[in-house]
Amino acid sequence: MENKKVNFSEWYNEIIDISGLSDKRYPVKGMNVWMPYGLKAMQLIDNLTRKYVDSMDFQEVSFPVLITRGQLMVEFEHVKGFENELFWITKGGSDKLEEDMAMRPTSEAAIYPMFSLWVRSHTDLPLKVYQIVNVYRYETKHTRSFIRIREIHFFEAHTAHATYEDAERQMSEYLSIWKKLTDMLCLPYLVNQRPDWDKFPGAKYTLAFDTVMPSGRSLQIGTIHQYGTNFSKNYNITYALDDGSHEYVSQTTFGMSERLLAAVISIHGDDTGLIFPPDIAPIQIIIVPIPSKKMDVASYGVGILNKLMDMGYRVKMDNRDAYTPGYKYNDWEMRGVPMRIEIGAREVENSHITVSLRSESGKKTMKYEEFFENLSEMMNSIKETLTQRAASTMRDLTVNAAKIDDIKDLEKIVKAIWCGSEECSRKIEEQTEMACLGLNQESTETGKCIVCGRNGTTGIFARTY
Amino acid sequence: MENKKVNFSEWYNEIIDISGLSDKRYPVKGMNVWMPYGLKAMQLIDNLTRKYVDSMDFQEVSFPVLITRGQLMVEFEHVKGFENELFWITKGGSDKLEEDMAMRPTSEAAIYPMFSLWVRSHTDLPLKVYQIVNVYRYETKHTRSFIRIREIHFFEAHTAHATYEDAERQMSEYLSIWKKLTDMLCLPYLVNQRPDWDKFPGAKYTLAFDTVMPSGRSLQIGTIHQYGTNFSKNYNITYALDDGSHEYVSQTTFGMSERLLAAVISIHGDDTGLIFPPDIAPIQIIIVPIPSKKMDVASYGVGILNKLMDMGYRVKMDNRDAYTPGYKYNDWEMRGVPMRIEIGAREVENSHITVSLRSESGKKTMKYEEFFENLSEMMNSIKETLTQRAASTMRDLTVNAAKIDDIKDLEKIVKAIWCGSEECSRKIEEQTEMACLGLNQESTETGKCIVCGRNGTTGIFARTY
Repeated sequence: MENKKVNFSEWYNEIIDISGLSDKRYPVKGMNVWMPYGLKAMQLIDNLTRKYVDSMDFQEVSFPVLITRGQLMVEFEHVKGFENELFWITKGGSDKLEEDMAMRPTSEAAIYPMFSLWVRSHTDLPLKVYQIVNVYRYETKHTRSFIRIREIHFFEAHTAHATYEDAERQMSEYLSIWKKLTDMLCLPYLVNQRPDWDKFPGAKYTLAFDTVMPSGRSLQIGTIHQYGTNFSKNYNITYALDDGSHEYVSQTTFGMSERLLAAVISIHGDDTGLIFPPDIAPIQIIIVPIPSKKMDVASYGVGILNKLMDMGYRVKMDNRDAYTPGYKYNDWEMRGVPMRIEIGAREVENSHITVSLRSESGKKTMKYEEFFENLSEMMNSIKETLTQRAASTMRDLTVNAAKIDDIKDLEKIVKAIWCGSEECSRKIEEQTEMACLGLNQESTETGKCIVCGRNGTTGIFARTY
Repeated sequence: MENKKVNFSEWYNEIIDISGLSDKRYPVKGMNVWMPYGLKAMQLIDNLTRKYVDSMDFQEVSFPVLITRGQLMVEFEHVKGFENELFWITKGGSDKLEEDMAMRPTSEAAIYPMFSLWVRSHTDLPLKVYQIVNVYRYETKHTRSFIRIREIHFFEAHTAHATYEDAERQMSEYLSIWKKLTDMLCLPYLVNQRPDWDKFPGAKYTLAFDTVMPSGRSLQIGTIHQYGTNFSKNYNITYALDDGSHEYVSQTTFGMSERLLAAVISIHGDDTGLIFPPDIAPIQIIIVPIPSKKMDVASYGVGILNKLMDMGYRVKMDNRDAYTPGYKYNDWEMRGVPMRIEIGAREVENSHITVSLRSESGKKTMKYEEFFENLSEMMNSIKETLTQRAASTMRDLTVNAAKIDDIKDLEKIVKAIWCGSEECSRKIEEQTEMACLGLNQESTETGKCIVCGRNGTTGIFARTY
């Protein structure tokens, strides 16, 4: 296998291929096949997402994929932001369509005409819906599995509120949902307010969640947007006030994609392969029996298997005859299964279980009861190890810069005092090829802009995916 | 509400609207919005499907929605069958695409180029995958929610086998999966082998599952297809034999859609509204508290709510202040919740629970413990009632015909001895407007064709959706 630090890009492509996450040999460029193992991991991420948003009274819906040209043209900034990336349907059967339709690049233009019908009065608010669907972008840049693709597995939440303050509270709620979700994925991130020239087309402002890949380049893995009344004014989404007049709703959205999986693969994986955080591991525990002539390893294994299944774990016993235990260890390590149980004659004889955690080297033999007593703690310790390791790597890949010269040719994320002007960010970009990710929301530092010397706060700069 | 028997079509549209299953006001004709309640019911059907196919070693995948013209053109019969129904993407951004791409109408042409890469040897077989995705058909006929639409929620299983006999065994396995699923949905059906001129484009033969709607028209709610080597020869899907030669795989598919939900709505519903079978009810039990000044109804209700949730039921307590208990009863009956619990002062005082089953009239007050002891039995009795009622309706809507004159203007499904010829089926169609659904697989009767008098077996004829 490729060395992750030295050849990250090759390592990334190789592990996705050999672990069976995705097959990119599909005939359409940038549209890949979700293989069973990869799809399962993504569905587990989706179900965590559902759990957290459902608990905040969101309701799941599913909108059509096609949007008429007329629907799209309603919000000018928005359509301008996406017009180069749209796939257009112009024909049905052999008929030329009366009106061209685009495949959704995101669903504002699909959802808001319906919001306009659904919202009538105060009692319809807040309106909080989400959908998990594919969106489509005609990417002309180099594509990369789970990172830059033309068919994107997309979570999008859309809300409407009576007031701007309510919408602001929704933004805070998103932050807390995001924290819960990324805690489960053991992912570190920065919260950056994108500069105005890079916010979502149509948004008042955009907060982005950026993480750092092993290459030192940043990956945007989620965004939340405050729309204010920008869309509601164009799509005519209003509620009636007591005096009979109408008020435009304030709106927000929250979006994320399979980039979450890309981050999990890249940040936790090592030169042996994937490492899945337990909560999204398609297989959490693999049982490898070591055949024995004198002891009934199979029955002992099945007993453990059934007990773990009853406890709700995703567990599997590898009974393949054609492979040695050693081969199986490597295989499941490569596939990132967080916990492995080995059982051979000695384990059966002594009622023992031998356990390896994918996040650590070595193995431990313990008593049967001891294993089950410690199981959830061991799973937690895997999460903790991954979380700490990822945070430490992110620290190593982040640098504070006092002047532009410090960061030229640097393959890291840069924190630097910045005045907030486009002019200064352009100068940094020209000299370092780093994009401006905006103002970091977690930093409180102030000082002098490293370009112009005016007052500023912490800006984030990085090469990006 | 409309009368279901008298105005079925209007009843159907109304109940879908007012119960919150789907909104058809979306700007693209035949593409509707899945509302939270409808989506939840469909997801519950999907998850039952997943459970049954997963237990038969199917693996879930997800293929891209776009298929190049070249991919499609590989199997001539197949593309001919769909060419009038394809949505074509011809532009990306402002570029004209080098090769047009179609939105999948079904996924043979998407999946089999990959099967050709995945299948190498005997050990790769059987290959059994499925996906739950939307497929797209440019319908020019009148559209109808969940029945005839342009964006179809689709389950499709695809298999490849070493021999035709293995593929035949797969067909039997589909029948058993189908039976398990429809048992949960309490749906009756006929298994009919479609006549050659109406089989799936590219199939060797097609078995269809047809049910009867209250209008007396048949609805195809699932199909399984034996492809033999028709597709593998064109998509070059082969495995190596020991002597180094290559053999084409035999293939099958199994398809179904939200028509299952259409059947559930139509067959079980009544003039009060929907009736969901418990296994796919988004809410299985609704608790309606009857406010009281002297007793703490709320606490008693929450206790029952929590206990039911712990038992794994999908349960909700209706605490809306603005509505009376009577209004709530009607509301949840209309939405088809299979079981309602009423609790008021008297119930709290005596530790009682008052229960109504949506499938029966009347209510029953029982002791708290008695309720929980009888709960699963009551749920089963709902299923049984729905199953028996549906079977009885289907019998009423099916008629045996001895001559064409018997069935003119009949709004029922017709069983008649038929020689199997296209000529005779055309004659029936011309005189009755009934389509030939093929030879019924459950009948063993033989006799003389009602058209030509030659030997025949039981054919099924009906007006169809």
